[in-house]
Amino acid sequence: MSSAALDDLINAVGPDVVTCDAVVMDRYRYDWAHDERAGMPLAVVRAETAEHVQAAVRWAAEHRVPVVPRGAGSGLSGGSTAVDHGLVISTERMRAISIDPAARVAIVEPGALNAEVKAAAAEHGLWYPPDPSSYEICSIGGNLATNAGGLCCVKYGVTTDYVLGLDVVMADGTLIKLGGIRVKDVAGLSLTKLFVGSEGTLGVITRGILKLVPKQPDKATLVATFADVEAAARAVVGMCAQIRPSMLELMDGLSINIVEDYLHMDLDRTAGAMLIAQSDAPGGARALEISIMEKVCAELGAKECFVTEDPDEGELFVAARRAAFPAIERRGSLLLEDVGVAVPLLPELIDGVAKIAQQNGIEIPVVAHAGDGNTHPNIIYDASDPDSRARAHGAFDQVMQLAISLGGTITGEHGVGRLKKDALPDLLGPDVMALSHKIKNALDPDGIMNPGAVL
Amino acid sequence: MSSAALDDLINAVGPDVVTCDAVVMDRYRYDWAHDERAGMPLAVVRAETAEHVQAAVRWAAEHRVPVVPRGAGSGLSGGSTAVDHGLVISTERMRAISIDPAARVAIVEPGALNAEVKAAAAEHGLWYPPDPSSYEICSIGGNLATNAGGLCCVKYGVTTDYVLGLDVVMADGTLIKLGGIRVKDVAGLSLTKLFVGSEGTLGVITRGILKLVPKQPDKATLVATFADVEAAARAVVGMCAQIRPSMLELMDGLSINIVEDYLHMDLDRTAGAMLIAQSDAPGGARALEISIMEKVCAELGAKECFVTEDPDEGELFVAARRAAFPAIERRGSLLLEDVGVAVPLLPELIDGVAKIAQQNGIEIPVVAHAGDGNTHPNIIYDASDPDSRARAHGAFDQVMQLAISLGGTITGEHGVGRLKKDALPDLLGPDVMALSHKIKNALDPDGIMNPGAVL
Ligand SMILES: Cc1cc2nc3c(=O)[nH]c(=O)nc-3n(C[C@H](O)[C@H](O)[C@H](O)COP(=O)(O)OP(=O)(O)OC[C@H]3O[C@@H](n4cnc5c(N)ncnc54)[C@H](O)[C@@H]3O)c2cc1C
Ligand SMILES: Cc1cc2nc3c(=O)[nH]c(=O)nc-3n(C[C@H](O)[C@H](O)[C@H](O)COP(=O)(O)OP(=O)(O)OC[C@H]3O[C@@H](n4cnc5c(N)ncnc54)[C@H](O)[C@@H]3O)c2cc1C
Repeated sequence: MSSAALDDLINAVGPDVVTCDAVVMDRYRYDWAHDERAGMPLAVVRAETAEHVQAAVRWAAEHRVPVVPRGAGSGLSGGSTAVDHGLVISTERMRAISIDPAARVAIVEPGALNAEVKAAAAEHGLWYPPDPSSYEICSIGGNLATNAGGLCCVKYGVTTDYVLGLDVVMADGTLIKLGGIRVKDVAGLSLTKLFVGSEGTLGVITRGILKLVPKQPDKATLVATFADVEAAARAVVGMCAQIRPSMLELMDGLSINIVEDYLHMDLDRTAGAMLIAQSDAPGGARALEISIMEKVCAELGAKECFVTEDPDEGELFVAARRAAFPAIERRGSLLLEDVGVAVPLLPELIDGVAKIAQQNGIEIPVVAHAGDGNTHPNIIYDASDPDSRARAHGAFDQVMQLAISLGGTITGEHGVGRLKKDALPDLLGPDVMALSHKIKNALDPDGIMNPGAVL
Repeated sequence: MSSAALDDLINAVGPDVVTCDAVVMDRYRYDWAHDERAGMPLAVVRAETAEHVQAAVRWAAEHRVPVVPRGAGSGLSGGSTAVDHGLVISTERMRAISIDPAARVAIVEPGALNAEVKAAAAEHGLWYPPDPSSYEICSIGGNLATNAGGLCCVKYGVTTDYVLGLDVVMADGTLIKLGGIRVKDVAGLSLTKLFVGSEGTLGVITRGILKLVPKQPDKATLVATFADVEAAARAVVGMCAQIRPSMLELMDGLSINIVEDYLHMDLDRTAGAMLIAQSDAPGGARALEISIMEKVCAELGAKECFVTEDPDEGELFVAARRAAFPAIERRGSLLLEDVGVAVPLLPELIDGVAKIAQQNGIEIPVVAHAGDGNTHPNIIYDASDPDSRARAHGAFDQVMQLAISLGGTITGEHGVGRLKKDALPDLLGPDVMALSHKIKNALDPDGIMNPGAVL
């Protein structure tokens, strides 16, 4: 890249917006997966407006420079990992949020954190449901680009279910406006939905119009332990046949023990599985739903079953579930899986993961958004030991192949990014891959948008 | 078309599956919009299997024959109107439904009626929520192709929210399989969602995997009348800021009178608007929600407010709402609008429609899925009077332009089809139109899939 070309970029967006400082740029090379193969970008644009994004993309298109869109960098699949000689476009400065309480929508710039959107909605007694565990550190743009899930999606759905409109800067710099402030809209192809979950490969999202709902009622919490994952999974099926829990999380025996090592909160170390369920049904219906859950747990021979109406006490157990990640991280380096299957197949999946762990001589504790069949096997390895690393990477692939063999998916919410790209054709098959490439090529013929990710 | 070519088609799918009989084919030329410009197809394929669909599309691709996919023909936008020398592919014989109660999914062939899917789910205590008013006469394939809405979508969402997977026969006859039995899946581009709402322009849907939920609890019903639409709309905003009604419908003064003429059920003829709302919150929460609704109605000066816990009594009012269509139909020929705006803009939209009615000297009663801001102005005209017809068509366009000027959509649930095609560029603008064409061309380069519809 000639310095004249870089000067063009600086002229186009202004010197405060672009940086080529290697030390500064280093902060924009990795996401939370911390892939050491990350490249060194030639510049980072910290866009302040959609026009900055347009100017930067136009410049990249002209010079055939790869563009990596970046939100808050909390991704777990290497989707915003920088590429050599590429341009990182960070949205961290684009954070405006405006709430229209009567229409119940939030109009947000992509860099706003999920937690900031929730807080802005709450000021009007409204709620933006999607709640990735990372909600305090991830951006709405990243959520939109990955179609992020979370804990409450078992009842309230995932990010795409809340998207009414998007502004997107396309690969040639054109800004397109999709959807609008209208709850139902079937005019033309479902383009808004196509961009949700496209992981930066089709364009840069510069604005989202998000649907809000009334604030969530109080929650009651049920915690139940089981001898094995099989019984817990059957309890999940039994509950979801009757009611819609607002949360339904599972930890396997190994993750219970690892969290207990970390938090010392008297979890049952002998349990094979623990469910953490919540009901947010309004008024007396909450007690009704909890009693249905209790009954199901009893029928399936739960070892213990504990219920609390106290939100703080309930939050302790949710915090235990959320603590799985830091607790597990203390034990070594991590490869984070995100495979999903039909809910009744959870036991097969989790048993299969245990076998893969054994065969490879490594630990793989599993936590799961059980109500959705979406699991996170966490592959622990010793990064300083090449052999351990190799076994971990082997297990990573084996877990994805296991999910595929069970009719499941390689990623339920984290995205394909760069880390799962090689497994995508195994899941989708050649025809769907070809179709995906047709769409990618139609929208980004020079392939400058997030190359190396997804496709 | 040479008869040898037609013989190829008959050989490919079998003589029982294809008909060229003009009398039989006449039944496949119109949808409910009954556009008299409908063409005469050269053949109708009543596919029994996905292989039949593939063979028919392959044949059409080879001979560059336009393909019109057809479900039950209940569409209101001319989406399945036959084209001259085209091939109609009807799914009416592909009706298999299988329910997996543990995974809570229905696997359905496209010709199954919405009501049949609901019934099959109900046998397992499960529920398929999307409920277009036409649910007894429309196919799931048509629902998927139009992303159909209905009455309960204010709380439960529209068709796309329940689609986990699709099989689609592409324009070259390839059968692709998208998604699967897994609630959360972000692997690759959101292709499943792209095909939902594509109105037969991207391929023929041959199978759907649909998410089911536990059966709906009993409903309580509130009916409130207001002096004008403004107050009713403000009540809608007030309710939805606090709770999520499971139904929230509006009739304007003119439609109240037209339904009263038809049903004689003592509706208040002096009311400017009537709301019909339901709560299906479980247990005691239902009474709580209804009392919140009552309070809002009182605050906004409702003329009358009536509440019933009796499902049959409640259903009477829902039936009155559903009767609007046949009641209005008795008064003349109809052009059915489907425009939507942000909920707080409902008064502007409905007032504007009244002005358009006055200017054109015609009646346009309005019913609305008010909780979603989606309205159906029903333009009544005299088909035997060319002047009345011209004024009606003028009003049809004016209503769409009004919706666009309010930041709304030209179609909230019925689709663009052939009747609203000309207005689509006004709504989407040149850039989004160009993007849509790029995708269409990438997937159907010869333009054989439902030409003349949508794009
Ligand atoms: C502790 C922890 C817990 C987590 N829990 C969850 C969870 O429960 N559920 C869940 O779904 N995820 C979870 N994640 C993953 C991650 O937080 C989400 O994927 C999140 O959506 C990423 O947002 P981000 O702003 O950090 O995006 P980044 O990491 O910056 O980027 C993610 C992807 O989105 C693209 N992108 C970002 N912004 C834009 C834009 N404006 N336009 C186009 N493309 C863009 C990037 O190119 C990249 O492909 C967790 C992560 C951590 C660290
Ligand atoms: C009285 C009445 C009330 C109605 N109420 C509602 C309502 O509340 N909400 C609502 O959304 N709609 C409503 N509709 C409209 C209509 O019922 C819906 O649009 C329905 O989804 C159409 O289904 P169908 O099987 O009749 O499709 P068709 O009319 O046969 O086709 C509709 C469109 O879908 C395409 N299509 C059909 N099957 C396939 C397939 N397998 N693959 C690809 N494309 C296909 C067709 O090409 C066409 O573009 C109503 C209609 C009537 C007559």
